[in-house]
Amino acid sequence: MSSQGRKPPFRQAKKGGDSVRGIDARGPSPGAERQRGGSQGFHAASPDVALLYGAHAVREALATGRRKLLALHATENALPRIADAAAAAGLTPRIVDARELTRRLGEEAVHQGLLLEARPLPDLDVSEIVQKSGVVLALDQITDPHNVGAILRSAAAFAVDALIVTERHSPEFGGALAKAASGGLEHVDIISVINLARALDDLSQRGYSIVGLDSEGVETLETVLIQAPIVLALGAEGKGLRRLTRERCDAVARLDMPGAIKSLNVSNACAVALSILQRRLGESV
Amino acid sequence: MSSQGRKPPFRQAKKGGDSVRGIDARGPSPGAERQRGGSQGFHAASPDVALLYGAHAVREALATGRRKLLALHATENALPRIADAAAAAGLTPRIVDARELTRRLGEEAVHQGLLLEARPLPDLDVSEIVQKSGVVLALDQITDPHNVGAILRSAAAFAVDALIVTERHSPEFGGALAKAASGGLEHVDIISVINLARALDDLSQRGYSIVGLDSEGVETLETVLIQAPIVLALGAEGKGLRRLTRERCDAVARLDMPGAIKSLNVSNACAVALSILQRRLGESV
Repeated sequence: MSSQGRKPPFRQAKKGGDSVRGIDARGPSPGAERQRGGSQGFHAASPDVALLYGAHAVREALATGRRKLLALHATENALPRIADAAAAAGLTPRIVDARELTRRLGEEAVHQGLLLEARPLPDLDVSEIVQKSGVVLALDQITDPHNVGAILRSAAAFAVDALIVTERHSPEFGGALAKAASGGLEHVDIISVINLARALDDLSQRGYSIVGLDSEGVETLETVLIQAPIVLALGAEGKGLRRLTRERCDAVARLDMPGAIKSLNVSNACAVALSILQRRLGESV
Repeated sequence: MSSQGRKPPFRQAKKGGDSVRGIDARGPSPGAERQRGGSQGFHAASPDVALLYGAHAVREALATGRRKLLALHATENALPRIADAAAAAGLTPRIVDARELTRRLGEEAVHQGLLLEARPLPDLDVSEIVQKSGVVLALDQITDPHNVGAILRSAAAFAVDALIVTERHSPEFGGALAKAASGGLEHVDIISVINLARALDDLSQRGYSIVGLDSEGVETLETVLIQAPIVLALGAEGKGLRRLTRERCDAVARLDMPGAIKSLNVSNACAVALSILQRRLGESV
């Protein structure tokens, strides 16, 4: 039973986004002859164009081939870092000035001289999760793109099967998040849901146990009863898990921390929890 | 043997910083009557004034009382969050406009309406480490303040005895770092050294085993031989541990990651490593 039904398009991905009018046909501007003029030579900003920058994010998107690629922009200095991957992907980089990328992406973007414009990855449904590690992450309105990016990187490293996020109060799955994910975005299936509580109900019915992480949890993640498949639910810093999310948890556990500070940065907490789950589930197999 | 000798003043702390001329005597400007004019009402920027902002960082500095406090600036909205801690610390907050704080701290600073000006914490020497958990962290030129801040938060949570950083190529121990540390900065002794390799030699002679973390390590941190007291050495993302640091390590270990991405964000890796050390050292006691 999928209690979610089909969702309206998520900002990270749009069903049928590949057929959006005009954008593909326009294509990247040729060569380096255009030098000024703001967005000239770049695709227009749109929910159907993911902007991936930074060496790891761009390399991994080129290498994994899960996206439709639109255009690659590289400075002369950065080009050697991705020339082979670009060639393998059949993409000719447009040589640009670093300032052009900064104008396009903003002063804060650590683009490392590389920008890949591509289609967002397809958005999936809870029913489409393929069980491999048996671990799924659910983020309850975590909004900071650096944290969610680091979480995605850890999720890819620990072979998490899917990352569930709420459609509202989640960051865009590109840009700073993709940079922080360091390529992890290309490896983890993302499921965006309108109603997280309902998605957890759905997963419960599919046999998942739901464990929430909370620094006030009575049991520790080291001792709480766990079995795969499992959903690990994380709340935003400060706010924690919402009541409706918490009510869906079979257990709410904390990390065992002996020191003066009793909570970690949410991406750090996630990485520690994934490491503990990996070991405990490995032992129980 | 302390091979370091006394170090020149570190930006995080200055020996005798409390007696720096003029600044203390000047004191905070009274009340809220000053409203515009840039830095008016604030202490002059100086290595001897640490700027701590954000609710957790400010609260924890007020509560732990390890610093000499200079002035507290709060918006009317933020005041209730720290009024009790300020009163307990004997400090009268100056009521300010949020824009004043933004002008002082820059657009990027998530100050949450709170700024505490205080003296930096005292800088310590390797010989002054007090062994409690028996775990010391050494950061080999990790420059990102958000990462080092998150590492400090984890270090405080896992009761790390000290954090060793290099005097050069380390972020300032205030501002964005203190905010990311969420109060952790007040709980972990910081040791800034000119020469990390020499500090590790010193610690070796004091009985510490040195374990470097590297995604290319042959053994995993789960299986490598460890015993307390131990120094866990972490390198910067991309660059990793420098050769001279690596040569001081009794072992270089990796985290066991089954997924497509083989390295974590450095603060995430640190948190996972501390969690593993905590469990393994606990078992061996």
